[in-house]
Amino acid sequence: MTASTTPRPALVLQSLLAPQSIAIIGASADPGRHNGRPLANLLRTGYAGRIYPITPREGDIRGIPSYRKIADVPERVDLAYLLVRADLVPGLVEECAQAGVRNLVVNSSGFAEEGEAGAAAQDRLRELAWQHDMRIIGPNCIGLLSTVENAISVTTLNITIEHTPGDVAIISQSGGMATNLFNRAQGDGIGVRAMVSLGNEADVDVADVVDALADDPETRTILLYIEQLRDVPRFRSAVRRARAAGKAIAGIKIGRTAAGVRSAQSHTGAMAGSYAVFRDLVGAMGVTLVESLDELLDFAYLRQQLGEVAGDRVLVVSPSGGECGYVADLVETAGLQMPEISAKLAERLGKVMRFGTPSNPLDLTGQVIGDDTLLGSVFGEIERSAEFDVVVVALPTWGEFDSARLMPAVIAACRTSKVPMIVTAWSSRGLTEYRDDLLRESPVASFENAGRAVAALRALAHRPRAIVYSSKVDAQLTVDPSALVDEVAAKSWLAELGISVSEESVLAPGQAPRAAAGFPVVVKGIVPGLAHKSEYGLVKVGVKDQPELERAVSEIADAAREHKLPLEGQLIAKAYSGVELIAGVVDDQSFGKILMIGAGGVLAELLDDKVFLACPASADSVRSALSKLRISRLLEGYRGGAKDVAALVRMLARVSEVAAACSDLAELDLNPIIVGEEGEGAFVVDALVRSHSIDSAPALTRV
Amino acid sequence: MTASTTPRPALVLQSLLAPQSIAIIGASADPGRHNGRPLANLLRTGYAGRIYPITPREGDIRGIPSYRKIADVPERVDLAYLLVRADLVPGLVEECAQAGVRNLVVNSSGFAEEGEAGAAAQDRLRELAWQHDMRIIGPNCIGLLSTVENAISVTTLNITIEHTPGDVAIISQSGGMATNLFNRAQGDGIGVRAMVSLGNEADVDVADVVDALADDPETRTILLYIEQLRDVPRFRSAVRRARAAGKAIAGIKIGRTAAGVRSAQSHTGAMAGSYAVFRDLVGAMGVTLVESLDELLDFAYLRQQLGEVAGDRVLVVSPSGGECGYVADLVETAGLQMPEISAKLAERLGKVMRFGTPSNPLDLTGQVIGDDTLLGSVFGEIERSAEFDVVVVALPTWGEFDSARLMPAVIAACRTSKVPMIVTAWSSRGLTEYRDDLLRESPVASFENAGRAVAALRALAHRPRAIVYSSKVDAQLTVDPSALVDEVAAKSWLAELGISVSEESVLAPGQAPRAAAGFPVVVKGIVPGLAHKSEYGLVKVGVKDQPELERAVSEIADAAREHKLPLEGQLIAKAYSGVELIAGVVDDQSFGKILMIGAGGVLAELLDDKVFLACPASADSVRSALSKLRISRLLEGYRGGAKDVAALVRMLARVSEVAAACSDLAELDLNPIIVGEEGEGAFVVDALVRSHSIDSAPALTRV
Repeated sequence: MTASTTPRPALVLQSLLAPQSIAIIGASADPGRHNGRPLANLLRTGYAGRIYPITPREGDIRGIPSYRKIADVPERVDLAYLLVRADLVPGLVEECAQAGVRNLVVNSSGFAEEGEAGAAAQDRLRELAWQHDMRIIGPNCIGLLSTVENAISVTTLNITIEHTPGDVAIISQSGGMATNLFNRAQGDGIGVRAMVSLGNEADVDVADVVDALADDPETRTILLYIEQLRDVPRFRSAVRRARAAGKAIAGIKIGRTAAGVRSAQSHTGAMAGSYAVFRDLVGAMGVTLVESLDELLDFAYLRQQLGEVAGDRVLVVSPSGGECGYVADLVETAGLQMPEISAKLAERLGKVMRFGTPSNPLDLTGQVIGDDTLLGSVFGEIERSAEFDVVVVALPTWGEFDSARLMPAVIAACRTSKVPMIVTAWSSRGLTEYRDDLLRESPVASFENAGRAVAALRALAHRPRAIVYSSKVDAQLTVDPSALVDEVAAKSWLAELGISVSEESVLAPGQAPRAAAGFPVVVKGIVPGLAHKSEYGLVKVGVKDQPELERAVSEIADAAREHKLPLEGQLIAKAYSGVELIAGVVDDQSFGKILMIGAGGVLAELLDDKVFLACPASADSVRSALSKLRISRLLEGYRGGAKDVAALVRMLARVSEVAAACSDLAELDLNPIIVGEEGEGAFVVDALVRSHSIDSAPALTRV
Repeated sequence: MTASTTPRPALVLQSLLAPQSIAIIGASADPGRHNGRPLANLLRTGYAGRIYPITPREGDIRGIPSYRKIADVPERVDLAYLLVRADLVPGLVEECAQAGVRNLVVNSSGFAEEGEAGAAAQDRLRELAWQHDMRIIGPNCIGLLSTVENAISVTTLNITIEHTPGDVAIISQSGGMATNLFNRAQGDGIGVRAMVSLGNEADVDVADVVDALADDPETRTILLYIEQLRDVPRFRSAVRRARAAGKAIAGIKIGRTAAGVRSAQSHTGAMAGSYAVFRDLVGAMGVTLVESLDELLDFAYLRQQLGEVAGDRVLVVSPSGGECGYVADLVETAGLQMPEISAKLAERLGKVMRFGTPSNPLDLTGQVIGDDTLLGSVFGEIERSAEFDVVVVALPTWGEFDSARLMPAVIAACRTSKVPMIVTAWSSRGLTEYRDDLLRESPVASFENAGRAVAALRALAHRPRAIVYSSKVDAQLTVDPSALVDEVAAKSWLAELGISVSEESVLAPGQAPRAAAGFPVVVKGIVPGLAHKSEYGLVKVGVKDQPELERAVSEIADAAREHKLPLEGQLIAKAYSGVELIAGVVDDQSFGKILMIGAGGVLAELLDDKVFLACPASADSVRSALSKLRISRLLEGYRGGAKDVAALVRMLARVSEVAAACSDLAELDLNPIIVGEEGEGAFVVDALVRSHSIDSAPALTRV
């Protein structure tokens, strides 16, 4: 996508969520045909606004007067669908723009997903639209629907006809998955306000829709199905606005694996980056990321039923001891809290219950069946104790007999309890329908599957907080070209910018060696452009005194001669001991400058222990990211004393500021960073800098 | 449970799976009452055998003649249910034993789950039964059911009445979960042969039932719901027989977490050990372990539908690009293979398909709808290529319109394909019923949820192979009491048994120190019973020459004096370099001697990187266990050369043999073991031995 010089028009939410008029260009009367479906859907679902079929043929279509051209329509329509071959699209977009169409859905495929020419054609459509204050959804999408006016104008008939309106908005780059999410949401009792399928995002993208929904008071939860974020800064700011307006946002990213990426490329032409980067950076915006449709829908469902939960202290209650153990294992494995019941509460519960020892999980035993007051008393005590944030009531596969005796009391308890309650109730075809219907018709939050209930609760109780990024960015910096040459120059550039590097001096050939900062030292031969120096015998570690230093210097000179390497000098660097980390900066095509922080040395690849942050990152966000690393235990002093985390945090925050300010920085590799004991500091021991504008270190020439 | 001197009678499978007669002791005519339910169930489900209600009251019960005592029943019954208060149980068990009852189900609670007196009462019931060739199921259980004669005599009415018989057997220690598994299996179209709820396992335990089912030709899959294994050797041998007879066994263990353990203790009195030990040791028997009821049932369902699969090379096919990416991510994340389509197959598919580029996942696009021959041609090419072991066909939420046009072709393709096929088809209430019914009535393996389909496929394709354990066990060994005193003695005991330990010598006070095996060395003060020697200044590492050695010896002597510690000598040990591991042996109350192998040093706690093996372990099983450790990469030489894995494997296999042979060994701690370069060996550097029969090192007395 190329940048546009035309300003982006506002996305008018009213015309999307409650369109008063819909034009269908290329409409057919045959609901089995793709271009007959939007009209068929609007008729099936009882759209309340005005419909304008546009077709070259004269007469009515399914009883509705048609028009030959969009220009003939007697009003400026809120939404028009374009259902024609790709080559006819440009001319019709022009006509729509001239006719003042507010939002145009281009369903046609054959654009960016088919290569560069298609991408250029897409860009031209957007330019045309923007010049006329029109917004385009698609191409290569199934369109959008809203339950507000029954405006179900999507290009599929696989849509439930009976709709439950609600406060959940679904935004998807895949049309098929948009449909699945909408249908499954409706089937699971989740009220939906709107569903938008974005396709190739020639113009309107996920950021636009999130931003628009931030202003919709009826939308409370936004679900995202993402293949690629095309404009991260706008997405971040849209998410910030929506979160500030009290919306919860959950999302799933497709293309997390190599096979998934293959699919995304062929599907909508999206290029997927590393999922770890996406997860850390989008998670840091406060978006709940999940990995299945179930989790996405269940999150929306639980929030619809419970609102927010105050914390994650869970009490598991069941009339079946088997359920107790099963659900307790799920809750603990999910990382939710299962605190034991206090002695005081146990005593109170003991007075109410006739059998068993009150514990968490709480086995009410079969005695609770048929005893309506017992259940109420138990839940009353739990509520009074204020020891739990959520109660999970786990029910076995019950037929009508036991359900009729217990379910009214369970449902009444859930309705009156001030502590949010979730019922999990295994269903079994041909047995549990009576009980399932009772639950479905009640306002209780219920799941047919304990695993899904617990995953939804975790997603709701452990919603990520948005990281507040530092806004402090230096005046524009550029990479010092000399920093690209070798590690000595790279480190001195970093040192000038306030980043602590190892104390070291360069020994010119023939000069007498000395350890300016004291022993032990590391000695390295300087050969610009040479990687893997130690394989050539050019690195000597643990050099402890002057005789060893002199021997090391002479051996390195010999090794360089032997391998015909152009030795420009030798680096004598103070040897630090402490915890080893790696940090790096890359300039990502979606996320911009990213700071990576990870375990160093042998742990780096054994642990796959790394986190990613957007630049510039505040000291607080660096500290919080460090705490997510497994090796944070080493920094806290699990073996040996606590390390100088404060110095490390200062250094990394500064690195991220420099990265943000330095537009031609392509890559920065700080490997290793050694963090000493508290008060001793943290130091970059080796560094590599790459620039977008200048080639890196000169190619190695053998002498 | 105390050991019995009476021999264990055989469990007669015929009398369990196809009981010809069932007596109900304490029967009631009221189906709402717990003691009325077995009779109610037998009548509801149409039991084909003879029923004998036993009750002190005269007359018929629900139209069936009753008897006052079991002794009055005119035949030796296959199965009797005892539905009375705990205190009445012993007398009635005696009567049943005298009357020649073959299998007695004691439903009553109030035994081992309520403490030691109850456990002793349980043991007496078993003794009584065994003396009369009777087997007891329970107490504290809901009983058993078999679909063979519609023998649904469980103590719950929450049971589906319409049964689908089949080849799956369910064995559960929890009655509630047995019911859930049976009901959900039936609801999901899984045919069940039998369900056994075992309760407290006074007599018949999970090993007995698995062993008996090994001889049932109709049983093909066994599902286990386990709180505790009470007799691991018998369980292991039962699993071996069942696996040899072609049965697949899958299981779930409850009490994997602290909260789950709390529940298991209060529920059936089971004590749960570490789940990691269970997982590794039961997995090594060839049992597929899962963590949810869904996975357990889906494994049984997929095996019922597909039999076995030849491998894990998966092709994902869909008419929807969105489904392609979603399912591809699931497949790769599950660790199944998603190989790319070969150039040859791509070419052949290209000729058949009119749009798109053939790839894996394979996006057939909407063109496939309504074109029956296309689907057949595509699957024909896939079958001929032999490039995939399984095809997953992913379908969106389809209503009747599209389903009617595509489903017949999909179902036909699945039926005729020689490559096993799985259909995943999202369901949505009120929309997809037509399609869901088509699939349910077809023989196709189908799932309503792609995530569950992929998890089931992983469980089926990645079934664990049983580890063959070494049978070589030394003549009985005993722990040398001196080995309990200090690390020097422990290591010399190990060395005598053929386990390589570090080269070292003990320096008596006043003696002149020397490094017999060369420098560098480690010097340690010997103070029996003292842990954390380095905190007292009693350990000097990296001692490089004679002057350093003399200084170290004198500093250690000073430190001992300063802390008033009774220094018995000093240990001068060769310093090894290499990869550090920890190994240990514990005598587990369920599994017997267990060998633990894990990462050593700082990695030990950062990684939680350990595996468990039963003793004695063969060299092959040790090698395979090592390969599961993250640090196996270090042993293979990821940094530095390959390490002496052969020596390590020899050492660990030998440790496991010694542990198996040494019945009074309570604990062995080898920490660290250093593995040198290839050919250099592996050495135990520090060791601790504890015995069951002798107290460990004498308590420390200060001088």
